[in-house]
Amino acid sequence: MLEQLKKEVFDANIELVNKGLVIYTWGNVSGIDREKGLVVIKPSGVDYDKLTPEDMSVVDLITGERIEGLKPSSDTPTHLELYRRFPELGGITHTHSAKAVAFAQAGMDIPPLGTTHADYFYGAVPCTRGLTEEEVADAYELNTGKVIAETIIKRNYEALSIPGIVVKNHGPFTWGNTPAKSVYNAVVLEEVAGMAINTLALNPNAAMPNYILDKHYMRKHGKDAYYGQ
Amino acid sequence: MLEQLKKEVFDANIELVNKGLVIYTWGNVSGIDREKGLVVIKPSGVDYDKLTPEDMSVVDLITGERIEGLKPSSDTPTHLELYRRFPELGGITHTHSAKAVAFAQAGMDIPPLGTTHADYFYGAVPCTRGLTEEEVADAYELNTGKVIAETIIKRNYEALSIPGIVVKNHGPFTWGNTPAKSVYNAVVLEEVAGMAINTLALNPNAAMPNYILDKHYMRKHGKDAYYGQ
Amino acid sequence: MLEQLKKEVFDANIELVNKGLVIYTWGNVSGIDREKGLVVIKPSGVDYDKLTPEDMSVVDLITGERIEGLKPSSDTPTHLELYRRFPELGGITHTHSAKAVAFAQAGMDIPPLGTTHADYFYGAVPCTRGLTEEEVADAYELNTGKVIAETIIKRNYEALSIPGIVVKNHGPFTWGNTPAKSVYNAVVLEEVAGMAINTLALNPNAAMPNYILDKHYMRKHGKDAYYGQ
Amino acid sequence: MLEQLKKEVFDANIELVNKGLVIYTWGNVSGIDREKGLVVIKPSGVDYDKLTPEDMSVVDLITGERIEGLKPSSDTPTHLELYRRFPELGGITHTHSAKAVAFAQAGMDIPPLGTTHADYFYGAVPCTRGLTEEEVADAYELNTGKVIAETIIKRNYEALSIPGIVVKNHGPFTWGNTPAKSVYNAVVLEEVAGMAINTLALNPNAAMPNYILDKHYMRKHGKDAYYGQ
Repeated sequence: MLEQLKKEVFDANIELVNKGLVIYTWGNVSGIDREKGLVVIKPSGVDYDKLTPEDMSVVDLITGERIEGLKPSSDTPTHLELYRRFPELGGITHTHSAKAVAFAQAGMDIPPLGTTHADYFYGAVPCTRGLTEEEVADAYELNTGKVIAETIIKRNYEALSIPGIVVKNHGPFTWGNTPAKSVYNAVVLEEVAGMAINTLALNPNAAMPNYILDKHYMRKHGKDAYYGQ
Repeated sequence: MLEQLKKEVFDANIELVNKGLVIYTWGNVSGIDREKGLVVIKPSGVDYDKLTPEDMSVVDLITGERIEGLKPSSDTPTHLELYRRFPELGGITHTHSAKAVAFAQAGMDIPPLGTTHADYFYGAVPCTRGLTEEEVADAYELNTGKVIAETIIKRNYEALSIPGIVVKNHGPFTWGNTPAKSVYNAVVLEEVAGMAINTLALNPNAAMPNYILDKHYMRKHGKDAYYGQ
Repeated sequence: MLEQLKKEVFDANIELVNKGLVIYTWGNVSGIDREKGLVVIKPSGVDYDKLTPEDMSVVDLITGERIEGLKPSSDTPTHLELYRRFPELGGITHTHSAKAVAFAQAGMDIPPLGTTHADYFYGAVPCTRGLTEEEVADAYELNTGKVIAETIIKRNYEALSIPGIVVKNHGPFTWGNTPAKSVYNAVVLEEVAGMAINTLALNPNAAMPNYILDKHYMRKHGKDAYYGQ
Repeated sequence: MLEQLKKEVFDANIELVNKGLVIYTWGNVSGIDREKGLVVIKPSGVDYDKLTPEDMSVVDLITGERIEGLKPSSDTPTHLELYRRFPELGGITHTHSAKAVAFAQAGMDIPPLGTTHADYFYGAVPCTRGLTEEEVADAYELNTGKVIAETIIKRNYEALSIPGIVVKNHGPFTWGNTPAKSVYNAVVLEEVAGMAINTLALNPNAAMPNYILDKHYMRKHGKDAYYGQ
């Protein structure tokens, strides 16, 4: 069942390793079959070099129940909440990539300082508020998904226009319309986070005018998109 | 047509990847045949691992019209403007390499702090002014070329003596008398940008006397050049 | 004798190189056979690419006397002291990995700023006090072990809950229940040290609430552990 | 003539590339035959991947005259001056490695902040004063050697006890009793420079007591040396 999606999710997880974004088991990618209401995700705690497409976990979007494969990643409730809240998502990636984590740990948005950022993220990549003690004690992973959704909604963001976030004291989640696209956005997020760290070291007041943000995002993603380097 | 130049431009684009200056499609190299008035440039949005020399786009220097090959990079109008304004250019490279981008995003020149810089750039690598809202709305890529040219001219720079620039909130463009040389200068620019970031962190007042800048640039590029490590 | 443990210690030393944590001979891993009271450790000053499992040194836990193999690492007295003081240790790793060394040289704890840290270290990774002139003059390596033990005990840490430390002006030691686990923790320590450096550059007041530290450490190591990415 | 030394100097130059300390032709290694009064050095401006042992330049220690091989590196007068002033030197390496260059450009010594430094350099790695305009205009490369020698002597350093220096606004030179050892010290210098940059970012007042510097240097280099990791 879902052999094609399992293969896509498997490939996306391996791509995460190939791009140098994860060590050991520090990340996971999922994908969704919206018609069947099923999510495919990396299994829990399995080393990347032992993964096979068949190992991928299949879970129910609503109940979270495991349908097939190995035990799903313990981050599964976060992924499921995001799929439930944002029907436009087709794939989600979570990593502990070091530069994006630095913003998460600093409790800071990744500000849009240049066109590399603007080509993919239509505004600041937000940092969520910290989870409360109650949210952590009770259904921590589910509440991580909820606080991400809360942040996106409060900022009036469309999820696919700012396809990533950093969770305070934790790290980045990114998404896209496919699993592969969510990994791509994870790579971009880490790159722009690194650029922002160096930029702010050189000039703490660095900023980009909104009209450049608009132009770059729109020439690539708007209805009149024409961009290609 | 232009098979030799296409091969040179193709090789230069691949070299950009091999040197680690670009990920995905985040860069492009072009070359020019001055006699024919034709520019060869990387096609738009094609992954580097699928590129062939035959894919290279050939466009008219004056009109920008595509003559041959795939759809040219959307940065083509920037390249064309630079070729038109500076007849001494034979190749141009654009990247989003992270350390040079940090200076672009900070809105700062890359100051000449040492002989590594002075061996290749005869003065500060300038950061352009930001484009105005009108310039962005109307022919953005062309205006990017114009603001680069404006900056070079205002500073009384000879283009081949300071073969690179960072465009505010965007990133570096470099050039040379050949496509390969423009890539070489892109590698050097990224290296000196990284050195400058660490230098300024150690000593915000770091500077180099002009006579060392003169000596190093001239022993390598002046009429009595004798340099070779 | 101890062929299995020698192989484990050999593999762990090689893994240290493969993970990029050491250059030249700048590190060592040991393991212990608690029943026999013998410690196996990398020999002194041998290049990693010439090491064989048979070269591993076997020394007596109490006397430090060499039983078998080449001359043991000069850091052996540090390892032995830690094995004597903390019976739960099964492997110890010492490196000069650059980011962890930065905290050692700065004389600072590596603060728990995020969940990457909390997944492995249940609190700040401590920096020891500096050794006194007398401690350095007299049995320096043994006293390095003693000051590590002193720090762990003073902080009321359980050794396996905070499986690493930085020795002031020196560098990191990590441990685990096996040699392989001590190397794993050395890799994690370097990664969280790097994240902390960037975090503190962005926000010198960054911190993580204790309840997130508790949650992350406990979901992975507590009696009700369920974690796996 | 000098086939063995040419091979050593060739290997040392290649090792410099393998360790990632140079790009393009940004570095050079030399060695000396003290009996014959001849120095072997990398030829000028030749790409590393085209070098052969036979290409190595042989020059006279006193006159600088080329005896054999290709045109010598333009940095040759610096090397010769150091060999003349310090008879204990057997090999010299010059690079533009990025972290050491940052200290050169900042005009700062690399302070001894930890035992990694102390294992190889018995004190701060000095930064020379800047060359005067006259020194630059007249025999620049020779004067670079002179200002290095002046610095070592002013500080009362033994050359082999602090086997490296950074030349203000330029970059590092390192040395040793063999060409290979001078490359080894170039690698160590870059590593400790990187550690120092991060240390000073965390704690601008970081320092190491002299008795630790003494202990570490002496356990490795003193007459009672016993060290080996």
